[in-house]
Amino acid sequence: MSCPGVRVIRLGINDDPRGRLTVGEVGQQLPFAPARYFTVSRVPQGEVHGEHAHRQCHRFLVSVHGSCSVIVEFKGRRAEICLDPPEFGLHIPPMVWGIQYKYSPDAVLLVVASHGYETSDDFRNYAAWQSADSSDA
Amino acid sequence: MSCPGVRVIRLGINDDPRGRLTVGEVGQQLPFAPARYFTVSRVPQGEVHGEHAHRQCHRFLVSVHGSCSVIVEFKGRRAEICLDPPEFGLHIPPMVWGIQYKYSPDAVLLVVASHGYETSDDFRNYAAWQSADSSDA
Repeated sequence: MSCPGVRVIRLGINDDPRGRLTVGEVGQQLPFAPARYFTVSRVPQGEVHGEHAHRQCHRFLVSVHGSCSVIVEFKGRRAEICLDPPEFGLHIPPMVWGIQYKYSPDAVLLVVASHGYETSDDFRNYAAWQSADSSDA
Repeated sequence: MSCPGVRVIRLGINDDPRGRLTVGEVGQQLPFAPARYFTVSRVPQGEVHGEHAHRQCHRFLVSVHGSCSVIVEFKGRRAEICLDPPEFGLHIPPMVWGIQYKYSPDAVLLVVASHGYETSDDFRNYAAWQSADSSDA
């Protein structure tokens, strides 16, 4: 992982003959208290999601079915992470630019967020974000 | 729905050509602040999960892929709900007995919980729970 602040976190796993349990608990695997979650599914092949950064909101991404890839960028460094179900969560802190793509046809991406939805928290323009990212370096 | 306190809640849905987004936000669709989530998957056919009640913990169940059914019981009343992906969440408040079964082979059940994992919060014995449920009637 070469992107500052971004972490791949191993979830709690319990496999037994009755099935598989994966767990994310606040203060253990989950590094923040959630205010919201959403799932992304039925993504057509080739589609790209994300393409923004948050000023304050932390995100925790888990591919709960199928797979997708995430590109993160911060302080001039970039990394790509393939999320396979569902042993790992990806913690994306505020100010990290992120995109999600390469969704498999059956992919369901779970995103747990530290804040409710507020458009004012978003950088949607890459150049504006880049300028803020550089000035804070 | 004939089981007191248990509610089927319609999630926020956004369908567009880039895919489907479903949202659960605290104070809107999610009736409590989460402390933990877990997913249940790879459940063999015929297997039954749950079979317990919590003293304090609220749960919010969403079938994010495939489907399963939930039986809830409280104050002598029982209901069965089939969870199809992923437009609806099922809020199960404390003291409601619940089981999950009829998992489809591809099912992924997301459970959001108001408390961390504590075995002391569980009723695992149906008769003991029934006695407490009746005395609180």
